[in-house]
Amino acid sequence: MHDNLVPELLAGSFRALARVISLIENESSDSVRLLEQLHPHTGAAYRLGITGPSGAGKSTLADRLAKLYRADGNRVGIITVDPTSPFSGGAFLGDRLRMSDLYGDEGVFIRSMATRGSHGGLPRTTRNAVKLLDAYGSDVIIVETVGVGQAELDIMDVVDTVVVVLVPEGGDSMQAMKAGLMEIADVFVVNKADRPGADAMMKDITAMLSWDTRERQWVPPVLSSQAHQGIGIEELWEAIEKHRKVSEDTGLLAVRRRERRRHEFFRTIREQAEQEAQRLAVTDGSLAALLKQVESNSIDPYTAALIAVKQLSARRRPRKTQ
Amino acid sequence: MHDNLVPELLAGSFRALARVISLIENESSDSVRLLEQLHPHTGAAYRLGITGPSGAGKSTLADRLAKLYRADGNRVGIITVDPTSPFSGGAFLGDRLRMSDLYGDEGVFIRSMATRGSHGGLPRTTRNAVKLLDAYGSDVIIVETVGVGQAELDIMDVVDTVVVVLVPEGGDSMQAMKAGLMEIADVFVVNKADRPGADAMMKDITAMLSWDTRERQWVPPVLSSQAHQGIGIEELWEAIEKHRKVSEDTGLLAVRRRERRRHEFFRTIREQAEQEAQRLAVTDGSLAALLKQVESNSIDPYTAALIAVKQLSARRRPRKTQ
Repeated sequence: MHDNLVPELLAGSFRALARVISLIENESSDSVRLLEQLHPHTGAAYRLGITGPSGAGKSTLADRLAKLYRADGNRVGIITVDPTSPFSGGAFLGDRLRMSDLYGDEGVFIRSMATRGSHGGLPRTTRNAVKLLDAYGSDVIIVETVGVGQAELDIMDVVDTVVVVLVPEGGDSMQAMKAGLMEIADVFVVNKADRPGADAMMKDITAMLSWDTRERQWVPPVLSSQAHQGIGIEELWEAIEKHRKVSEDTGLLAVRRRERRRHEFFRTIREQAEQEAQRLAVTDGSLAALLKQVESNSIDPYTAALIAVKQLSARRRPRKTQ
Repeated sequence: MHDNLVPELLAGSFRALARVISLIENESSDSVRLLEQLHPHTGAAYRLGITGPSGAGKSTLADRLAKLYRADGNRVGIITVDPTSPFSGGAFLGDRLRMSDLYGDEGVFIRSMATRGSHGGLPRTTRNAVKLLDAYGSDVIIVETVGVGQAELDIMDVVDTVVVVLVPEGGDSMQAMKAGLMEIADVFVVNKADRPGADAMMKDITAMLSWDTRERQWVPPVLSSQAHQGIGIEELWEAIEKHRKVSEDTGLLAVRRRERRRHEFFRTIREQAEQEAQRLAVTDGSLAALLKQVESNSIDPYTAALIAVKQLSARRRPRKTQ
């Protein structure tokens, strides 16, 4: 049924790309085959992540950077991760509608994905959507995560360069540090730098970075910008490109991408194991009995899970059953 | 070696409790047996969660509430989840040292746990530590999560009543909504309510709550407080106790606790499956070969994981191998 989608996508069909992303997002039964066929065509795109608290101006920065890359003749893919409204089940319209002046450009593909069901983390389908944009022939893929939380930390497992955007506001740099952003940032930008406190915030971040005494081949620069006025965008672009060059030259990029593939492998196994356990809890007598004990509180759930895993793995290796 | 710890803990030994929590936190080989033995003695404690962005005054509120519960003769356990400094690997000293005037009170047990290794989520050992405080005979257990992120959402799986604390600050209510806090809050408190914008924030939250048109047995109240001055604490305490009573009377509490046990069961299976896969990737020839392909980028990691899971489950049910 979807036999022509892969060649069409590889030939640059906008429509085919949009269709395949939808199939992947809905985890259609064809997704595995599609990903398998597209994999040999991935790896050429550079992946840029933009993250930080909501209201920091990430969308505007992404927009401006996309235009710079377009001006150089690059094909750009943008994926924004929209927190799903807990009440409506839909993504926020406001996020979907932004960056409208890029929509007419055939060299830019923009897709918004909802966090629905990912418990605050990056939707697992985002990883696969990035691969599709890569196979499609994007030169640069920008992944923008909205809001604070696990999605921010997950982004490290998806992109090659992480830009953390902050705004001068009480306690924001401390909060960024607590949330683990210091560890994942390759470039810091203090946006809305015309607000009071911007210089102090840049100094704070620089000071925090200096606490890290590990041997490093890259120390994240701390920049400032006013995205709406277009101020500081070129400097940000230069810092990103410098990080890219250092990553490529030192071999850091290859290491990071290998680590990313390992993580995705084990993460998928973990997710599949849970789905399998949910299924067996209905179809398998002994697992169903254990779950019933858990629900009626006659056994500790942690202990019960260890018993379940033991039972399942004993069945897997019959030579070791006792 | 730890044979006397369980009876000592059940008899109310502070020292035994501290020792067992450490064993659990380090996931010692004895933890499973200890949890199994203590499980029949759990279930009596009421579990209260306090969460919200950093700097909102959660610690002070927890402190004040603990004192109210103490004044009523309750034994109180407090677990604070400290974000681990990404550089030092240790928890922030500032968080550990707070609430010092409760330390002398034998009826209050305070423990700070680091988020280390939990990727921004609630440390998995927190669930087990709460069980220990329960078996120890705490009447109320307060779990306080510091910072924003997954830990906030995870708290719903640990406690009976969730208090979300916000402060009047630009965009905070919108950010709370985006982060999914609206969905998990049983009680809202706008703390530092003497600051400008407090009334507007309370109205915002009330308006957002009114968008939820689902049939509900409990609509979260929106309160205000000035924790440092002790203002609004009794009202907060009353709202918590009212939620507790409604939860108990309507059967919501029983449903919530059963759901919680189910989640813990499946979550533990998922974690164990990943640990097992990590082990097999070293010891099992075909899994190791697959991982090598993943690392060298000759197969898509997502596809590879699905193959690995298929291989493992085929080995588990030999009648289905082909």
